[in-house]
Amino acid sequence: MRDRIKRVFSLINDDVDTILLRNTGFRNPSFLYLTGLTNGVFEGATAVVSRDGGVDVFISALDQGEDTSNIRFHMVTKKRDFVDTLSRLIPPGSKIGVDGRYLTYQDYKSIKRILPNRGLRDVRERILLARLIKDKREVENIEEACKIASRVAEEIPGMLRDGVMEKEVADEIVYRMKKHGADGEAFETIVAFGENSAIPHHTHSERKLKRGDIVLVDFGATVDGYISDISRSFIYGKPSDKQRRMYEVVLNAQQQGIDSIKKGVTFDYIHSLVYRYINETEFKGRFIHSTGHTIGLEVHDGFTITQGCKKRFLIGMTFTVEPGIYLPDVGGIRIEDDLLMGEGGVRVLTTASKDFEV
Amino acid sequence: MRDRIKRVFSLINDDVDTILLRNTGFRNPSFLYLTGLTNGVFEGATAVVSRDGGVDVFISALDQGEDTSNIRFHMVTKKRDFVDTLSRLIPPGSKIGVDGRYLTYQDYKSIKRILPNRGLRDVRERILLARLIKDKREVENIEEACKIASRVAEEIPGMLRDGVMEKEVADEIVYRMKKHGADGEAFETIVAFGENSAIPHHTHSERKLKRGDIVLVDFGATVDGYISDISRSFIYGKPSDKQRRMYEVVLNAQQQGIDSIKKGVTFDYIHSLVYRYINETEFKGRFIHSTGHTIGLEVHDGFTITQGCKKRFLIGMTFTVEPGIYLPDVGGIRIEDDLLMGEGGVRVLTTASKDFEV
Repeated sequence: MRDRIKRVFSLINDDVDTILLRNTGFRNPSFLYLTGLTNGVFEGATAVVSRDGGVDVFISALDQGEDTSNIRFHMVTKKRDFVDTLSRLIPPGSKIGVDGRYLTYQDYKSIKRILPNRGLRDVRERILLARLIKDKREVENIEEACKIASRVAEEIPGMLRDGVMEKEVADEIVYRMKKHGADGEAFETIVAFGENSAIPHHTHSERKLKRGDIVLVDFGATVDGYISDISRSFIYGKPSDKQRRMYEVVLNAQQQGIDSIKKGVTFDYIHSLVYRYINETEFKGRFIHSTGHTIGLEVHDGFTITQGCKKRFLIGMTFTVEPGIYLPDVGGIRIEDDLLMGEGGVRVLTTASKDFEV
Repeated sequence: MRDRIKRVFSLINDDVDTILLRNTGFRNPSFLYLTGLTNGVFEGATAVVSRDGGVDVFISALDQGEDTSNIRFHMVTKKRDFVDTLSRLIPPGSKIGVDGRYLTYQDYKSIKRILPNRGLRDVRERILLARLIKDKREVENIEEACKIASRVAEEIPGMLRDGVMEKEVADEIVYRMKKHGADGEAFETIVAFGENSAIPHHTHSERKLKRGDIVLVDFGATVDGYISDISRSFIYGKPSDKQRRMYEVVLNAQQQGIDSIKKGVTFDYIHSLVYRYINETEFKGRFIHSTGHTIGLEVHDGFTITQGCKKRFLIGMTFTVEPGIYLPDVGGIRIEDDLLMGEGGVRVLTTASKDFEV
């Protein structure tokens, strides 16, 4: 993890001495990133990350940790000892960096109390910048998560039958991802039939499948903390001409977006291409979200492929490309794949087929 | 929800005018409690809760909300409008209450910036106190979550076979809870075989089942935001005399704890009874955690039945009773049920049978 820590500190200007990360109550992705402790619970653990690449991790008696070349574990039994060690590691006058999205107000107050006379700075944006470029281990986990999601995506047509509920298909998707090796679902699995597919925020309900429905699924697997995120759209029965045209437009828009991604191209350029492509069809104004987002330890791992985002595609980035069209009376179509910007250009990691008719 | 809001404010002294709750990135139980919005995503939503029982909820275009007698929804499209309305609802000089465990540092900084000249106070403890006593709707959801968990607990013996992995049983448990109507698992399902059952923080692994193993499961369902939490222990094959004695002691300790719970009795009194019971057997010192905890919107919903907790059992409380014995060389036994303190005394909500041998 030393390389990651060095990259983060190189992105922060000199006045932050230490990064303090707590894993309280919920999973803190920056804690996982800088400690590499993706295989355990570590609830309530505290990590003190130093400029030299060393990390001190304070854990409860319920967790176990084995020291590595850069991680030293401290079992916290008495609060007094914890405070003393922390004060020694972060002496008065230090400036502490935190991930402001994963530090609670409760913990903030407690840091101010037990570590007075230190500065505090939210370095989340800097950590996110470092997290943009994935290392080998990270890519392997994302690839595995993509492989599992693709495999389940191929199995979805077999789950569709008259009267099956959105919820039943969603449960089956999660069960199969785990069966194929996932630790869990990356986010609440979306299965939307018919009119529900036109609502991007719909998750799943007891709505039953009937002939002529569009089936929109959007789901992903978690592997060792890293996620995948795939969408496929099917027609159950015979598509109308309009549904077929919608599907073709989304498929072509996605392909055009993917084909245009090169090293150095900006995120907003790709979005504008995809957006314009759809807006030049009869479905003008019906693509109502961004073209994609970076993925990693979080589903939205820092940056969005959308208007105004001047980030550039660089080697080692992983992200989605997912145009969609939504018509309240007809349904919605979204096709989403995960990609890696590699040395030899962009590579699609979610290889599930894209047949509209099942 | 007016009653809940009134109860919370009655527990806070006069100097808090408004409670501000954000549902950012993760589910904020206090947001769910005071808005009642357990059936939706509402990611990033902000609730402004007033002393008079009215609530203003700010949501994004991806969510939908229908005004009720006490909730007014505002769709946020422009940040400027959001800030203006917020400033009007919470005028300068006001004192704002927050749930410090679910307010991020990022949001704290943003509140300080867009709402200057207001005080801020962490009222989490007060909200937790109000949440201790469940109303009818809450009890119904917890009962349903308990019913589902109990039903799946009964099915577990049928999942056990030579060579099955802990992970496979865990996945099956989650799948079946959903099939029986749960929204999901309440926490990461624990399935521990043999030596793993002696580690209370173990979740599940690829460890395969063999004859003579203890099987310890600990899981729960979520229903409309509310959870259940049940543990059962089985022996796969023939128990040793020691394993049989362990099981008997835990079962009797639990029964004694449950039988002693009466209105007005303190949490630590029940813990001391259960603790003493086990310590008077050959398994002295092997009960290494608390006797239970309150349940509700969170698995640990505020208070723990343990040494030093002077809280008293009152009508409307829901909680677990879960003694255990852990022997590194033999395995662990834990038996856990969820209970409701009702008008006529305590009632066990998780009714699954407790046969050690399967």
